[in-house]
Amino acid sequence: MAILEAARRQFASGGFTATTIRSVAAAAEVDPGLVVHFFRTKDALFVAALELPIDLPGELLAAMRGEPAEAAERLISTYFAIWENPATAAPLTAMFRSAATNDQAANMLREFLLARIGKSADLPRPAATVSLLFAQLLGIAVARYIVRIEPIASMELDQLARELTPLAEFVLARGDASAS
Amino acid sequence: MAILEAARRQFASGGFTATTIRSVAAAAEVDPGLVVHFFRTKDALFVAALELPIDLPGELLAAMRGEPAEAAERLISTYFAIWENPATAAPLTAMFRSAATNDQAANMLREFLLARIGKSADLPRPAATVSLLFAQLLGIAVARYIVRIEPIASMELDQLARELTPLAEFVLARGDASAS
Repeated sequence: MAILEAARRQFASGGFTATTIRSVAAAAEVDPGLVVHFFRTKDALFVAALELPIDLPGELLAAMRGEPAEAAERLISTYFAIWENPATAAPLTAMFRSAATNDQAANMLREFLLARIGKSADLPRPAATVSLLFAQLLGIAVARYIVRIEPIASMELDQLARELTPLAEFVLARGDASAS
Repeated sequence: MAILEAARRQFASGGFTATTIRSVAAAAEVDPGLVVHFFRTKDALFVAALELPIDLPGELLAAMRGEPAEAAERLISTYFAIWENPATAAPLTAMFRSAATNDQAANMLREFLLARIGKSADLPRPAATVSLLFAQLLGIAVARYIVRIEPIASMELDQLARELTPLAEFVLARGDASAS
């Protein structure tokens, strides 16, 4: 599809911020309305262009809403459901490996997350809390699925969730307290 | 130095577990006592062979001793002192990037950490607590220094320490409670 090819090229060469629905439409020689019709938002276009099977930050932000205890449980179960499914884990691993070693890929990921976390009005929690949780979840995934550090790598998922849920709740509640 | 070259070759090809002071000494055609004289332990030989400027897991384990509140503060300040110093951060970044993308490097790092965390009798905390803290600290470093996710990447170090210290204390205290 010409739109996706154009988007992939522009996100890769110009980064997330410089790429717009309009610039992608121009490169693909279609009307911007057609891009909106197919992809709705630039975020969704980015996710499609990178062939990510899922909008991970979007899923996590949605899971973070509500009371800390509930939000923590939802966040941990949402996150690990994604990582325990090979169909969604494989492309995430690929994206993470690119971001860890390739500055251009890191820039794209960073700008994409910044565009998300930067829209503070839409965030379910303070930006510092969101980025802290993202960083911690990232670390656990790297330790468990990529570098495979024991005992986290072989821990039963139930036990891991029991370890992590109170921790996520602590971060959420602390963030709420410092914001109020 | 022949010992370091032999160690580097063996750690890289055979991994951490298969490499011994004896096997390195044999490859370097020296007496094992000479290897012990220079490097004392296999851990120290590994750190020297990888040209790591510091034994990061050893420093972190030492920092984790004592009361949770004190240990948390010491752990966070030790960890970020290492990452904020370019001389120690650069080789750690290189090692991390290798481990994220190269299975052989990941194996070496994993076996090295496993050998450390596996020696439960020497651990200052339960193995699950230690690996959880390692994973979380890893995630924060990746977010701040490698992928540079905002607002963590630009946060003043003081503020970051204020965010993370209570969290580390929570993990330490929880681990102690579940172990007792």
